[in-house]
Amino acid sequence: MSSQKPLNVGLVGYGFMGRTHSNAYGKVNQFFDLDRRPVLKAVCGRNESNVKAFAERWGYQSTETDWRNLLSRSDIDLVDIATPNDSHAEIAIAAAKAGKMVMCEKPLGRNPTEATRMVAAIESAGTPNMVWYNYRRVPAVMLGKQIVDEGRLGKIFHYRAKFLQDWTISKDLPQGGAGLWRLDANVSGSGVTGDLLAHCIDTAMWLNGPIQSVTGVTETFVMERHHNLTGKVERVTIDDASAFLARFDNGALATFEATRYARGHKALYTLEINGENASIFWDLHDLHRLHYFDHRDEGRLRGWRSLHVTDGDHPYMKHWWVPGLQIGYEHTFIHQVADFLEGLRTGRPAAPTFRDALATDLVTDAVLRSATSGRWETVGRG
Amino acid sequence: MSSQKPLNVGLVGYGFMGRTHSNAYGKVNQFFDLDRRPVLKAVCGRNESNVKAFAERWGYQSTETDWRNLLSRSDIDLVDIATPNDSHAEIAIAAAKAGKMVMCEKPLGRNPTEATRMVAAIESAGTPNMVWYNYRRVPAVMLGKQIVDEGRLGKIFHYRAKFLQDWTISKDLPQGGAGLWRLDANVSGSGVTGDLLAHCIDTAMWLNGPIQSVTGVTETFVMERHHNLTGKVERVTIDDASAFLARFDNGALATFEATRYARGHKALYTLEINGENASIFWDLHDLHRLHYFDHRDEGRLRGWRSLHVTDGDHPYMKHWWVPGLQIGYEHTFIHQVADFLEGLRTGRPAAPTFRDALATDLVTDAVLRSATSGRWETVGRG
Amino acid sequence: MSSQKPLNVGLVGYGFMGRTHSNAYGKVNQFFDLDRRPVLKAVCGRNESNVKAFAERWGYQSTETDWRNLLSRSDIDLVDIATPNDSHAEIAIAAAKAGKMVMCEKPLGRNPTEATRMVAAIESAGTPNMVWYNYRRVPAVMLGKQIVDEGRLGKIFHYRAKFLQDWTISKDLPQGGAGLWRLDANVSGSGVTGDLLAHCIDTAMWLNGPIQSVTGVTETFVMERHHNLTGKVERVTIDDASAFLARFDNGALATFEATRYARGHKALYTLEINGENASIFWDLHDLHRLHYFDHRDEGRLRGWRSLHVTDGDHPYMKHWWVPGLQIGYEHTFIHQVADFLEGLRTGRPAAPTFRDALATDLVTDAVLRSATSGRWETVGRG
Amino acid sequence: MSSQKPLNVGLVGYGFMGRTHSNAYGKVNQFFDLDRRPVLKAVCGRNESNVKAFAERWGYQSTETDWRNLLSRSDIDLVDIATPNDSHAEIAIAAAKAGKMVMCEKPLGRNPTEATRMVAAIESAGTPNMVWYNYRRVPAVMLGKQIVDEGRLGKIFHYRAKFLQDWTISKDLPQGGAGLWRLDANVSGSGVTGDLLAHCIDTAMWLNGPIQSVTGVTETFVMERHHNLTGKVERVTIDDASAFLARFDNGALATFEATRYARGHKALYTLEINGENASIFWDLHDLHRLHYFDHRDEGRLRGWRSLHVTDGDHPYMKHWWVPGLQIGYEHTFIHQVADFLEGLRTGRPAAPTFRDALATDLVTDAVLRSATSGRWETVGRG
Repeated sequence: MSSQKPLNVGLVGYGFMGRTHSNAYGKVNQFFDLDRRPVLKAVCGRNESNVKAFAERWGYQSTETDWRNLLSRSDIDLVDIATPNDSHAEIAIAAAKAGKMVMCEKPLGRNPTEATRMVAAIESAGTPNMVWYNYRRVPAVMLGKQIVDEGRLGKIFHYRAKFLQDWTISKDLPQGGAGLWRLDANVSGSGVTGDLLAHCIDTAMWLNGPIQSVTGVTETFVMERHHNLTGKVERVTIDDASAFLARFDNGALATFEATRYARGHKALYTLEINGENASIFWDLHDLHRLHYFDHRDEGRLRGWRSLHVTDGDHPYMKHWWVPGLQIGYEHTFIHQVADFLEGLRTGRPAAPTFRDALATDLVTDAVLRSATSGRWETVGRG
Repeated sequence: MSSQKPLNVGLVGYGFMGRTHSNAYGKVNQFFDLDRRPVLKAVCGRNESNVKAFAERWGYQSTETDWRNLLSRSDIDLVDIATPNDSHAEIAIAAAKAGKMVMCEKPLGRNPTEATRMVAAIESAGTPNMVWYNYRRVPAVMLGKQIVDEGRLGKIFHYRAKFLQDWTISKDLPQGGAGLWRLDANVSGSGVTGDLLAHCIDTAMWLNGPIQSVTGVTETFVMERHHNLTGKVERVTIDDASAFLARFDNGALATFEATRYARGHKALYTLEINGENASIFWDLHDLHRLHYFDHRDEGRLRGWRSLHVTDGDHPYMKHWWVPGLQIGYEHTFIHQVADFLEGLRTGRPAAPTFRDALATDLVTDAVLRSATSGRWETVGRG
Repeated sequence: MSSQKPLNVGLVGYGFMGRTHSNAYGKVNQFFDLDRRPVLKAVCGRNESNVKAFAERWGYQSTETDWRNLLSRSDIDLVDIATPNDSHAEIAIAAAKAGKMVMCEKPLGRNPTEATRMVAAIESAGTPNMVWYNYRRVPAVMLGKQIVDEGRLGKIFHYRAKFLQDWTISKDLPQGGAGLWRLDANVSGSGVTGDLLAHCIDTAMWLNGPIQSVTGVTETFVMERHHNLTGKVERVTIDDASAFLARFDNGALATFEATRYARGHKALYTLEINGENASIFWDLHDLHRLHYFDHRDEGRLRGWRSLHVTDGDHPYMKHWWVPGLQIGYEHTFIHQVADFLEGLRTGRPAAPTFRDALATDLVTDAVLRSATSGRWETVGRG
Repeated sequence: MSSQKPLNVGLVGYGFMGRTHSNAYGKVNQFFDLDRRPVLKAVCGRNESNVKAFAERWGYQSTETDWRNLLSRSDIDLVDIATPNDSHAEIAIAAAKAGKMVMCEKPLGRNPTEATRMVAAIESAGTPNMVWYNYRRVPAVMLGKQIVDEGRLGKIFHYRAKFLQDWTISKDLPQGGAGLWRLDANVSGSGVTGDLLAHCIDTAMWLNGPIQSVTGVTETFVMERHHNLTGKVERVTIDDASAFLARFDNGALATFEATRYARGHKALYTLEINGENASIFWDLHDLHRLHYFDHRDEGRLRGWRSLHVTDGDHPYMKHWWVPGLQIGYEHTFIHQVADFLEGLRTGRPAAPTFRDALATDLVTDAVLRSATSGRWETVGRG
């Protein structure tokens, strides 16, 4: 019935991120005019009844309980990895070798070694690939990118980002297992550094270029927690908080911070860039607003402009409703799928690719090394 | 394949509101656990190729070009009216007589006469019915309703609402036809009074009870516009701006205002209630925040609380993502469908019904009468 | 020792307003370069020991217990009236007849009859005069005036002002006597209409020209209070809340509201003007910010600008500190004295004069008349 | 005439800070009930005509052109140092030796060596002393201190402060001489580290206890500027920007940043503390608001409270106007004088003393050392 060429999707993982991805595949053709249409061929998960229920809810045509089965299915074009971090490398490398396109949740690997192997595999396969750093595709953030690319800021002096949450303050919160694997470093690789800071770093390098060197510090405020899988109180292996100073290649000085101990903040991802001529500021809690200051405005009438990024000439917004009416978190994933499909059409791959995401892993690695060494560490180049 | 009992939907109209409704029917079962599932049986519109394209995009199983055909189809349970205001009454009354459930875009009629006939028809048919005053179902607004219902505000002194836009300031904007029928009083009934003020009034009476009397004023700033259907410059028949003072049955004093000439505001619907003990304030431009002031807080630490209504214990939010992550405009329609379906299950109809919406039409009518008479006008009771 | 010519001041009243005026006289020459210097010759009040304590604290050279004595003193140039409203007319008229300059607290009279007699007396005397509508001289408000006068807004469509307080909600608050005479209509003339709305109206007509007609409503939420002077529970004679709709001569539509029953607001005076090309908004609670929207800004980068009015090229601010550093409420009075003294030098009297303030009394009178008649009332012209 | 015992003040320096101090001495007894009254005995500056003009404007009884003369005058109780940083140590030590009370502008010395000698001298003399870290006495900041001292925050996890300005971005701005000595490290000691960061550090240790160790970075974006005193283009010796990570003794992790290259910010001093139970945030640009989040509030109604710190039960505010009405920057100095005088009366010296200010110099020193070493540096203890 549809006029678009299908793109057959096999999703691995059906947790929180499985929902955001499934929603994106289902909505993208209703709001964007594209020549491809994602078709939800299969979803894979280890618990058969759960995965079947998920498939029914989201309209997947089949289910699998072993992701390896997806690789041999000729009706799967794209393998989408929405599993915990410890399986990203294995699945992605195998999928690449099987000639599949691969989309992978962030961070790419648990460490640069894994991520480097993933980049090698996908580039060797030559198949389209992308990593779900979704915040690039908030309309207000994308408008910030346009402002930067148009050179409106002038020479950049400062970059400032933080991602503050407060959901792990209670000592009674356990670690491990479904929903809580992010607190177990064996699974996640690291704590807020690879989880929240990775988002900040991805956006930062996209907006302001490579980070040269960092000095960082991490902290674990709650040292022991009940572990859901072992059933015992175990040492917490992740970092609860992480902060670092950085220098970018372009000379800008930066501060970064992420924590899950910032009482009162649920998901306060903020970023600010100060340039010679203009500055921008954004805040995930009020995601439709970009704050823009332009020093070239007439002096008496100069001030931070609160841009409500909902107009037809704002990024992505002509696809949605009318000025003043907002979209939300889930739409960033829809935009990402739209851009990925458009990249397939034009042959200009949408970012961030695996290679782009490796660069982020190299920064988080330098931060963690610095937190141990107490010195500035140079960021590796992939 | 699905375990829920189908609810077969026939949609009339495929413009802006047709999209919001279609999206709601498609998403509701992915995010809410319900015993009914809307099935998109048919969409109806006069232009055959347009309606077919719409059907393909949104997954409707069939199309019609005459809405009367829907009424005789036994596979249609619910007729959803998303057409311009001048056809609401005819379609709704016929659908009711055909024994269909009816959902209708707001305002219910172009005037109380139409609306009264619609109420009579639907109540005579005894079928479930609802009007799409969607803003009640913004999570922050619904939280406001809970606060009111819990008696936290105490005796109410003041209600204050406005809905400010700026999209019709240009004299070059034409009137009439697709997208611009709101500027033609023959089609719309009135200008901002029935369009924007109606939203303010619906929420106001839901939160604060009946409005007793009003004194109002309307204004038309641009007196002539090119008419898209006649091809001629014609007198503008709608009100561009409308404001009124009101007394509620509960003694509260109120100010209301709506305009499309408030430069700088895209869709600034704000509401505020001041009670003896506490107050609330909400603003559509930042729709996830409810501002709450409670005088019973300890004196030195008393202040307006900015509630970021995204937690699992906030209205509707457990169905979406995690704290801090936002939803948008379209979700209010999804919530409305969820509540409608839940109302079918429980037998307690979700509001606003046709009768509730008639009450709003009676207030807008009193405002328009007062704008002519220059006096306070008593609001009719339906 | 001083190089400036003295301006000898005799102050009547030493309450809250006596303090703000005294502070202004004392500070003005330290921050402004002027050719006149206020000298605090005398302060007058009925309670001798209180007035002496006040004189010592503020540096007045002498005290009086009968204001009539000031009029015959040749060492008094200016009589400054900071008493409750019921003595404004008598003192001002006598001072004018005695050939004194007169500054008077607002509102000018308790009603247009008193105010008209005061204007006649001062204009007959031909002496400099001014009324303390201090909010005109908040730097951000004065910047708004500059923006209006430069024609940046274009044709004005809407004016919107409110002044919300919450300090009289408790039924236990008495009326009458020191600090509470504003709740006694015999003394004050009216409640919030003459107190808070008068401020809104003064600024409105200064910014947007004459008000033509109004329809208003008033309310008294607490009907009886203990009276401090009679010692009995007495009927409350003032309006606790007041709201009106208005049309300006320039065609703009307006809403005004004042109340002391808006829980959560201490002194929320806000004003907004929407013009064809631009809009401004201001809020006394954050008095240094003027919000400015200019539609001529490039589309994608258009937004409300938050002007932190603290730069050297902002009104009054070069006399104070450095950009970013704020001044407060009391400074509006200092600015008013500076402008008054500068008006003496140039011969171009600073506004608002008695005649300007009469115009405000004529609007409040029309509001009160309309609240009784239930109709639109034409505003008298002085 | 006055009933208070005089405190005879000799001020050294009549620039920006000379004005803020003089204003404070003149106003304090009009708003605070104290048993001492500052008497402006003498002001000292090198340019005789300028200092005489200053004396006339501010009411100083005499002038001096050599500060040493103040020390021998028996009519001077207190020497107040408002000169550039390079003369703080010499004047303060001599004044202490002469038995004078000493108030000194911040930072105390240009480095810990100077500051240590100053502390030794004043403690040896045993005379009252204070340093003008004025921001402690913003009412909202002092309310934050009360909240901390009452234990409302619980265990502290994070401290976050920054002080952002943008006034030195232009390459054409010269360095050196009046008003620009802050850009000349010989005079100032350092750039933003000793100027802006010092404020952040003083407040931080007052609120959150000693800082243990830091890792920092500094940057000079404009390397050469015309020097006003030499008339030549010279190397810029100060740091334009400075950032550091820190650990407090109490285990909290911190980020600090100061710059004069943050386009769009005039004096954006912000601070935030996140505790186990509650958090506070403050911003100098809107200095009357303290933002307070308390996790113990009922879940659904939990949010950041915007406290408009203008009530009678808020710190200092009962001395000023009425709720809702603001004070400004200059009032922090008035509060400091009031507290100093009250400390004289009670014998409990008001902070920060010279010893407190030395602690801040030891932190800035560690930051500058770390910026050179690239390592974490332990903060010296005075």
